[in-house]
Amino acid sequence: MNEMMISKKTTNIVDINGVLVGTDAIVIMAGPCSVESEHQILSIAKALKQAGASVLRGGVYKPRTSPYSFQGLGSAGLPLLKTAGDETGLRTITEVMDPRDVELVSRYVDCLQIGSRNMQNYTLLKEVGRTSKPVLLKRGIAASYFEWLNSAEYIWAEGNKNIILCERGIVSLRDGLRYTLDLSAIPYIKSITDSIYRGYPIIVDPSHGTGLADLISPMSKAAIACGADGLLIEVHYNPSESKSDSYQTIDYQQFNGLVSQIKKLAPVVNRTTLV
Amino acid sequence: MNEMMISKKTTNIVDINGVLVGTDAIVIMAGPCSVESEHQILSIAKALKQAGASVLRGGVYKPRTSPYSFQGLGSAGLPLLKTAGDETGLRTITEVMDPRDVELVSRYVDCLQIGSRNMQNYTLLKEVGRTSKPVLLKRGIAASYFEWLNSAEYIWAEGNKNIILCERGIVSLRDGLRYTLDLSAIPYIKSITDSIYRGYPIIVDPSHGTGLADLISPMSKAAIACGADGLLIEVHYNPSESKSDSYQTIDYQQFNGLVSQIKKLAPVVNRTTLV
Amino acid sequence: MNEMMISKKTTNIVDINGVLVGTDAIVIMAGPCSVESEHQILSIAKALKQAGASVLRGGVYKPRTSPYSFQGLGSAGLPLLKTAGDETGLRTITEVMDPRDVELVSRYVDCLQIGSRNMQNYTLLKEVGRTSKPVLLKRGIAASYFEWLNSAEYIWAEGNKNIILCERGIVSLRDGLRYTLDLSAIPYIKSITDSIYRGYPIIVDPSHGTGLADLISPMSKAAIACGADGLLIEVHYNPSESKSDSYQTIDYQQFNGLVSQIKKLAPVVNRTTLV
Amino acid sequence: MNEMMISKKTTNIVDINGVLVGTDAIVIMAGPCSVESEHQILSIAKALKQAGASVLRGGVYKPRTSPYSFQGLGSAGLPLLKTAGDETGLRTITEVMDPRDVELVSRYVDCLQIGSRNMQNYTLLKEVGRTSKPVLLKRGIAASYFEWLNSAEYIWAEGNKNIILCERGIVSLRDGLRYTLDLSAIPYIKSITDSIYRGYPIIVDPSHGTGLADLISPMSKAAIACGADGLLIEVHYNPSESKSDSYQTIDYQQFNGLVSQIKKLAPVVNRTTLV
Repeated sequence: MNEMMISKKTTNIVDINGVLVGTDAIVIMAGPCSVESEHQILSIAKALKQAGASVLRGGVYKPRTSPYSFQGLGSAGLPLLKTAGDETGLRTITEVMDPRDVELVSRYVDCLQIGSRNMQNYTLLKEVGRTSKPVLLKRGIAASYFEWLNSAEYIWAEGNKNIILCERGIVSLRDGLRYTLDLSAIPYIKSITDSIYRGYPIIVDPSHGTGLADLISPMSKAAIACGADGLLIEVHYNPSESKSDSYQTIDYQQFNGLVSQIKKLAPVVNRTTLV
Repeated sequence: MNEMMISKKTTNIVDINGVLVGTDAIVIMAGPCSVESEHQILSIAKALKQAGASVLRGGVYKPRTSPYSFQGLGSAGLPLLKTAGDETGLRTITEVMDPRDVELVSRYVDCLQIGSRNMQNYTLLKEVGRTSKPVLLKRGIAASYFEWLNSAEYIWAEGNKNIILCERGIVSLRDGLRYTLDLSAIPYIKSITDSIYRGYPIIVDPSHGTGLADLISPMSKAAIACGADGLLIEVHYNPSESKSDSYQTIDYQQFNGLVSQIKKLAPVVNRTTLV
Repeated sequence: MNEMMISKKTTNIVDINGVLVGTDAIVIMAGPCSVESEHQILSIAKALKQAGASVLRGGVYKPRTSPYSFQGLGSAGLPLLKTAGDETGLRTITEVMDPRDVELVSRYVDCLQIGSRNMQNYTLLKEVGRTSKPVLLKRGIAASYFEWLNSAEYIWAEGNKNIILCERGIVSLRDGLRYTLDLSAIPYIKSITDSIYRGYPIIVDPSHGTGLADLISPMSKAAIACGADGLLIEVHYNPSESKSDSYQTIDYQQFNGLVSQIKKLAPVVNRTTLV
Repeated sequence: MNEMMISKKTTNIVDINGVLVGTDAIVIMAGPCSVESEHQILSIAKALKQAGASVLRGGVYKPRTSPYSFQGLGSAGLPLLKTAGDETGLRTITEVMDPRDVELVSRYVDCLQIGSRNMQNYTLLKEVGRTSKPVLLKRGIAASYFEWLNSAEYIWAEGNKNIILCERGIVSLRDGLRYTLDLSAIPYIKSITDSIYRGYPIIVDPSHGTGLADLISPMSKAAIACGADGLLIEVHYNPSESKSDSYQTIDYQQFNGLVSQIKKLAPVVNRTTLV
């Protein structure tokens, strides 16, 4: 197998409003776990833009294990995210959980995210499949590759071929780390041709995949080293103030360090960076 | 611990249109994986009623791993299921996948089912939480007890306290069997008091939990032996003709044998059967 | 499948010095996690004999996760265990960890135990395979059925066909319980004929399989209900004083209750008890 | 956290007869799954030496799931491995399974390997702990970090502090790949200070960790990118002829490509290579 040839031959490039995912250029998506306020999302967006991110993430509908945890700003957060994107030139991505929200969310963001818990929410998959928006499909925490690709196929079958896969950790032996980041998924899925893999770009979320801020930089490098097309990183100006996921969120300095290391690493694995 | 005292003290009895779940009486829910035709569901319902089932299951919206597999009859199946229930006196249960269908489905069936794949589909949980219909909440294939109970809490927090938990197997070492039926969940959850467990009845689905017809009878007995409040069984007059789940579906003779064994077993564990 | 016919036809009865495992009669093995003193093992043995156990367990070589935990009395414990067996008429079983100890241990006990951690310690398996002593082979915590049966085959291939399998829980989602007791293993393994399953009796260890004293009684009943040929239970006169495994050890009263429930349950599943 | 500082500060350098593991220099261990003949091991050793390996691996005692699979040459293979090492200047490593073989094996090789199946074979751990030979301790397929480090402690407690950890994949969702290579283990273990982690170097075995030849190169790069101190690779002049593990064995050309990529990658993550 010539890894890069396979990658080049089969990757189905996804266009997020001008930012291409699946080319030789690595795409970095970053932002806070949740959109908390206009000030918060805008100031983070500016810092990320300067550091080299291309896409701004920020949750407005937050799927939380407990109904009593902070649930996000809801649709009130959408214009805040859009403003931050518009003012910085970053593309935007947010998770959609309710099929009835797909049309509304699509008006505000450049890319729709399907979270792990909803990887087999077929109603939702079909609904985003009927739009033309790029869709980031996170892997379920116990989903086999076959199940994950079949979930992507639910979107594809409706006509929307703008699909990006995102590895974010699977169930683990739960000692020290909450999930096991399965990086082998990247070269494995990219190598299979006798399946319904349709050349989707694959990115990695080391924030959820490790659950620990200190591991995000080394595992980001590992992800790029084995062929990931991009990264999805949780960043906050003060992680300890973050309303959710504070343990796995990095600050600006750590993010700048990470981007600088990815820039050094990219050419070694025949990649570039967008930044 | 006096097991039965705990059970009696804490179980939150759920009333499925007159069939009580969570009393000393074991409730048997059974039926085909999918509603396939009026003839099919009605003839199966009659056989199940005669054998001793109380609740008729039958999928109309089928969550299938592949978009190209049989997806169920959809809403056209609802009146067929209702007719079969009305003609036999069986209560009815079916899975709902789309929050927009909850109101419609609620008009046709006595109990709403949330499937494993949607255990953390919070949009859907909230929607069924706003009805007064009993809800059967299946455990996700990688859900911890804590996550499962928190998902139940999403329903409870909306005001609907008619919740039944259903163990259906978790991810396994995948050799021989697709899932590992976690029967310890039953006495464990019934024993915890320092949590958000609200005394929900717990039933077991050995059909999905083992994936093999031959294992359904022994694992049904095991489920009752360790405290399950009921069973959910896939039955078809000709399992090999079933449009889905044929390997884990039993026929009438096997179902009659199973019910007869449960009747013998119940008094040994201080239970009765409804039949 | 007629479950009992299969069981009767294929079970390879193992004779532990007169106590037969694999007949219709359920065999109960019980005792402390560790042999702690002559007084301790003898007084427990007497209580267990009276309650209805047939085989006395007691560890002398203890495989502990940390080298700094209590490691058992070592070979000094062997005569204590033998005396307790001789005085009560109970057969004895203990774990052997070192191939160099097999000959010595064989002089003192009636049955050799291979623990989970050593299920694929082929050196040890071959060594016990060269004796004529019955061997209880515990399943590894991540062993597939295929791997488990192949480990038994290492013993069988050396000429020792006196093998008993013991399910003791596999790796789990680790929330609340340390392991997941996989009871489906019993009817599944007993149903496979196209494999190297040679009709081994299968018993269940709910003490390690659940890790919680309160779950031992319900899961013991479940094990017998789905076809187990026996049980292996940790009992101590004062579990809180036990030098190891105190959380999963039951006292005499709980053990008496358990045996009395198994006696009631046995005939319902066409079994008897030795007691 | 400054990753490299932590690594530099805490790593306990292990000296394999002059080849240091745990410095800035990445160490590559490679060789066939099994020593098959003098010609085979010598010709492979020469090719590996030329390509840049420092340590020659080759199994003589092979732990195979089935007793009927090829079990290795046994002790007859030891002089063949030693000759290959002597003639090429490569250090040698082989797995030892029987505590009674430790002394013999120590006379022939430079480093002892404890395989996954024996990670909690405490008898064997203590025995190698009583030698002064470096020990490579592979992680068990279901071992938590805590359990793994405690197993290392069994060796340490006997006085042998020359311990190298080796990540080789853990139980997975078993779809496509047999194991899940847990690369997060490397930065996680290197970051913990409130534990019994004693600064052991950590290397990665992508051959067993992925089970597929095509994944070895990308996952080797990922391992080095996140901080691994070395690699353990299965190489054969004709993988399809290999008596064991042929699917996960690479040929000379692939190995040369891999080493050349590691050489390019090393300086990007502040490492060098021995070659």
